[in-house]
Amino acid sequence: MGRHQYYLDKLSRSFQIRNKLLRQALAECLGTLILVMFGCGAVAQLVLSDGTHGMFLTVNFAFGFAAMLGILVCGQVSGGHLNPAVTFALCLLGREKWRKFPVYFLFQTIGAFLGSAIIFGLYYDALWDFAGKVPDELLVEGEKATAGIFATYPGKHLTIVNGFFDQTIGTAALIVCILAIVDPHNNPIPQGLEAFTVGFAVLVIGLSMGFNSGYAVNPARDLGPRLFTAIAGWGPEVFTVRQCWFLVPIFAPFLGTIVGVMVYQLMVGFHVEGEARDRAAAIEEESVKLNDVTTKDDKNGTNA
Amino acid sequence: MGRHQYYLDKLSRSFQIRNKLLRQALAECLGTLILVMFGCGAVAQLVLSDGTHGMFLTVNFAFGFAAMLGILVCGQVSGGHLNPAVTFALCLLGREKWRKFPVYFLFQTIGAFLGSAIIFGLYYDALWDFAGKVPDELLVEGEKATAGIFATYPGKHLTIVNGFFDQTIGTAALIVCILAIVDPHNNPIPQGLEAFTVGFAVLVIGLSMGFNSGYAVNPARDLGPRLFTAIAGWGPEVFTVRQCWFLVPIFAPFLGTIVGVMVYQLMVGFHVEGEARDRAAAIEEESVKLNDVTTKDDKNGTNA
Amino acid sequence: MGRHQYYLDKLSRSFQIRNKLLRQALAECLGTLILVMFGCGAVAQLVLSDGTHGMFLTVNFAFGFAAMLGILVCGQVSGGHLNPAVTFALCLLGREKWRKFPVYFLFQTIGAFLGSAIIFGLYYDALWDFAGKVPDELLVEGEKATAGIFATYPGKHLTIVNGFFDQTIGTAALIVCILAIVDPHNNPIPQGLEAFTVGFAVLVIGLSMGFNSGYAVNPARDLGPRLFTAIAGWGPEVFTVRQCWFLVPIFAPFLGTIVGVMVYQLMVGFHVEGEARDRAAAIEEESVKLNDVTTKDDKNGTNA
Amino acid sequence: MGRHQYYLDKLSRSFQIRNKLLRQALAECLGTLILVMFGCGAVAQLVLSDGTHGMFLTVNFAFGFAAMLGILVCGQVSGGHLNPAVTFALCLLGREKWRKFPVYFLFQTIGAFLGSAIIFGLYYDALWDFAGKVPDELLVEGEKATAGIFATYPGKHLTIVNGFFDQTIGTAALIVCILAIVDPHNNPIPQGLEAFTVGFAVLVIGLSMGFNSGYAVNPARDLGPRLFTAIAGWGPEVFTVRQCWFLVPIFAPFLGTIVGVMVYQLMVGFHVEGEARDRAAAIEEESVKLNDVTTKDDKNGTNA
Repeated sequence: MGRHQYYLDKLSRSFQIRNKLLRQALAECLGTLILVMFGCGAVAQLVLSDGTHGMFLTVNFAFGFAAMLGILVCGQVSGGHLNPAVTFALCLLGREKWRKFPVYFLFQTIGAFLGSAIIFGLYYDALWDFAGKVPDELLVEGEKATAGIFATYPGKHLTIVNGFFDQTIGTAALIVCILAIVDPHNNPIPQGLEAFTVGFAVLVIGLSMGFNSGYAVNPARDLGPRLFTAIAGWGPEVFTVRQCWFLVPIFAPFLGTIVGVMVYQLMVGFHVEGEARDRAAAIEEESVKLNDVTTKDDKNGTNA
Repeated sequence: MGRHQYYLDKLSRSFQIRNKLLRQALAECLGTLILVMFGCGAVAQLVLSDGTHGMFLTVNFAFGFAAMLGILVCGQVSGGHLNPAVTFALCLLGREKWRKFPVYFLFQTIGAFLGSAIIFGLYYDALWDFAGKVPDELLVEGEKATAGIFATYPGKHLTIVNGFFDQTIGTAALIVCILAIVDPHNNPIPQGLEAFTVGFAVLVIGLSMGFNSGYAVNPARDLGPRLFTAIAGWGPEVFTVRQCWFLVPIFAPFLGTIVGVMVYQLMVGFHVEGEARDRAAAIEEESVKLNDVTTKDDKNGTNA
Repeated sequence: MGRHQYYLDKLSRSFQIRNKLLRQALAECLGTLILVMFGCGAVAQLVLSDGTHGMFLTVNFAFGFAAMLGILVCGQVSGGHLNPAVTFALCLLGREKWRKFPVYFLFQTIGAFLGSAIIFGLYYDALWDFAGKVPDELLVEGEKATAGIFATYPGKHLTIVNGFFDQTIGTAALIVCILAIVDPHNNPIPQGLEAFTVGFAVLVIGLSMGFNSGYAVNPARDLGPRLFTAIAGWGPEVFTVRQCWFLVPIFAPFLGTIVGVMVYQLMVGFHVEGEARDRAAAIEEESVKLNDVTTKDDKNGTNA
Repeated sequence: MGRHQYYLDKLSRSFQIRNKLLRQALAECLGTLILVMFGCGAVAQLVLSDGTHGMFLTVNFAFGFAAMLGILVCGQVSGGHLNPAVTFALCLLGREKWRKFPVYFLFQTIGAFLGSAIIFGLYYDALWDFAGKVPDELLVEGEKATAGIFATYPGKHLTIVNGFFDQTIGTAALIVCILAIVDPHNNPIPQGLEAFTVGFAVLVIGLSMGFNSGYAVNPARDLGPRLFTAIAGWGPEVFTVRQCWFLVPIFAPFLGTIVGVMVYQLMVGFHVEGEARDRAAAIEEESVKLNDVTTKDDKNGTNA
């Protein structure tokens, strides 16, 4: 095993990337790839099997546990955001540097693009079999539409205003939950279980806010696969359909992030922070007093 | 990042609320908001999609994991009751002060009110689309009724007496499980996982006791959304329908709490408590004996 | 709060049971009550709602998480067996005393009896509503049969021999999983999570071995509710139907326990035990050698 | 209890196997038996009940939690691979010795064979009842086919090339997740919860990649049951059908393992390893400096 180990070590040294931000971006890319691959894979399984191998619940489970696995894969390296809205929230709160934001956004989108490409390959035969009656065409709208496997499209009942509200609220809910889970002053979860909990949050958002437009609540998860479908055969219609719907899951989540951060901080965050600060101050004061006593003693000592 | 941090700190100091009970009430409000937003959101998704995007199981999952997330968000601050019946149980057992009870009840109800208001906004288009055939009317009863999305209404087979028993037993079951989970003398769960376990308890109550009237087992979760529907367009019928059913999920849960507390304490609680007391007494006795010995030794010492 | 606490303390002292076995039996009774109440409640919800509020999967979830909650409620006091087969396995392995076995069996059966009685009350209206077309009769067999809500009955395809094999294998699988989870020499689970894991084992048995006769794999869970149905209106037919089927879920699980204990011990248990013994022996030997050295040194010392 | 304990001890000594690799192989055999017994049991329940007692989601749950339980049963002894692809991955990374690979592969296949034999026995009556209309025949293809309960067969839409890609990607995804979970330098999970996490990974693969050919992603899980069906009455057709499909789930997973190992190592693994190495080097350098200082001090000391 000695030689084997030697070559592995050499490989490891050759391929190690020295730039920390690039390393983090790569990890974030893999994490988002996993999220989208499993998530969109479940939608594909539901749509292409005509419901025999899935239902909306399986999509919710898949996105929830895919988020969990994605975070586990890259969390130690990059923090496991998988979502530009999460990066944005942590930047707003001063827990990540702003220059990370565009880099993470880019690599998260690339990861989502690659994840949907893998699903396209995996279900290539099934896609053409499903589209069968209208050969040589991948459709964005209609009964045999398959673009919805990759990016989100609004339900027929949804106006653009309600859709914007939907994405804003969905992301705000996600951000409130995530902030509670990772808040250093409000730390209820045993270390290592944050990923599970975030997974359950994603699951529950899908269970309760998925009917309007499929709960993207993540600009990268929606934009990456949409770009892929535009290239892979569905054409530019994926951007123009329904009054340029594609802009909603890009911009609404950031508004939702601001709402979520404000709600959490005003109702819980600032208070637990303040409590921690008060506690720290009390301890310091106490030690100052003790110092005074010691100093006095010392003085007494020197006086003596 | 220095300046950013400085402003954040200033914000935190400005908005920190000094009154502890108010802080706790606010946290409780946010927790219950999350519970009802996700829970009622799942009912809305099931009803408004005519079953394509949900089923009764998804509602059970949503309420279970919503309880889990709600507890995680506010648990460190307020204890994460989310339910006046839980507050009542802990007051009965002397673990919370009675004056907390009305404050928590009020803010839990406000949280539930706000949570259902958010869902109303989120599914505004879908609500009117669903009601489509009878325009300009939101119905409390009938095929196209949507009031059941927010508050609970009894099934057709249910009499008021059986309904009262149903809510009493459901709450008793919930309270027995919660007491076992948080009992300081019967502590089976690793710290931080209580929220998960309570979530599973809520889930299982929904799986097995949800058919009669939708397992409110929580006065605030039912009253808050009912008030909202009365205001938002369903009208006073939400209170008068089915012989003033709305009183059942307000009063039965408190009776259920008393039953649950008694059952748990008589069958498990008092005994583990007693065991702990016996152990403490034994240790004390032991140390008294040791003291005696020491004293005797001392005497001997002084005798010598 | 002082007076409140005083009365609680007094109550606690009055109701504390001094006999440890009785205390454990009571806890076991409550745990099994919870298991059967939630489990059979889910079957009732499935049957009585004609599938609108449940499906076989919800029954599996309910039994799994009910087992989890039952174990959490009584585990610290009685070990949380909830199943005479589990008690039997632990007696076989010398981890519990044999005289516990009949007491636990009795109280587990009583708990199951009470649990099904609660469900009977909870769904009283629904039961009669369901039986509607054949009034004044609760049926054991046929389309409108409701006896299957409480005890298990074999599917139409099942012979008594295959049914016996089914219950034997199901219990053996359960016992292998439980032994692995609680084996002191093969301890993979963080303390406090055993209940969760056993819950998942019960869930998975239901998912894969539930079609033949509803996976009782527990004599108490089947006998208690069956006794209740015989009294509550279904009559003695619950015992005589299908060639006295009721004997199978009483006796087969004990055979299954023996098979499970043997399989686990032969394939894993004896070896991890042996390894632990070898390790202990090695440490002892080491310390003997050290002693030798020390003694020699001492001798040298005295020689000097 | 003394005598009981004595005999148990004697039994333990008699049956303990001294050879470590054999012990590990036996444990691996039991683990894979559990995986296949529960997993294929769920498929049997789904197929034989015509969907009344299962759906594709229950199969996904069963395989996921069966993997979890299998790992828990044998993990402490053998590592809990349950899958030759996992063994292969760990050998590639130098974490297991290559000579383990054929032994594990053999015993994993034997375990899978035995697991499917148990399910065959458990559902013997149901199998013949299901096949009823074509008596005396167990079919590999067609409406009443039951061979798919045990081994995997491709969907009608699937070409052999796409099937190979499907198995490769599925295994690669599994391996990336498992490597992240068990990587000593990227250790996000509390000890003891690895089994749960792997279970969720298996679940999510089933939710999103199960439509093409049933996500074997495990040569042993597919080959063992296929051998069993060939013997038990389905005949050699199980090997020849669909252009010898059976070769795909044997060979593609190993290719997938190589892909998965490369992706994980290049995008995360090498970098966390490198970081750990850099940290170790820094600590060493630091201690060298300290030594220098100490030596200098010493010199100074001697100079003085």
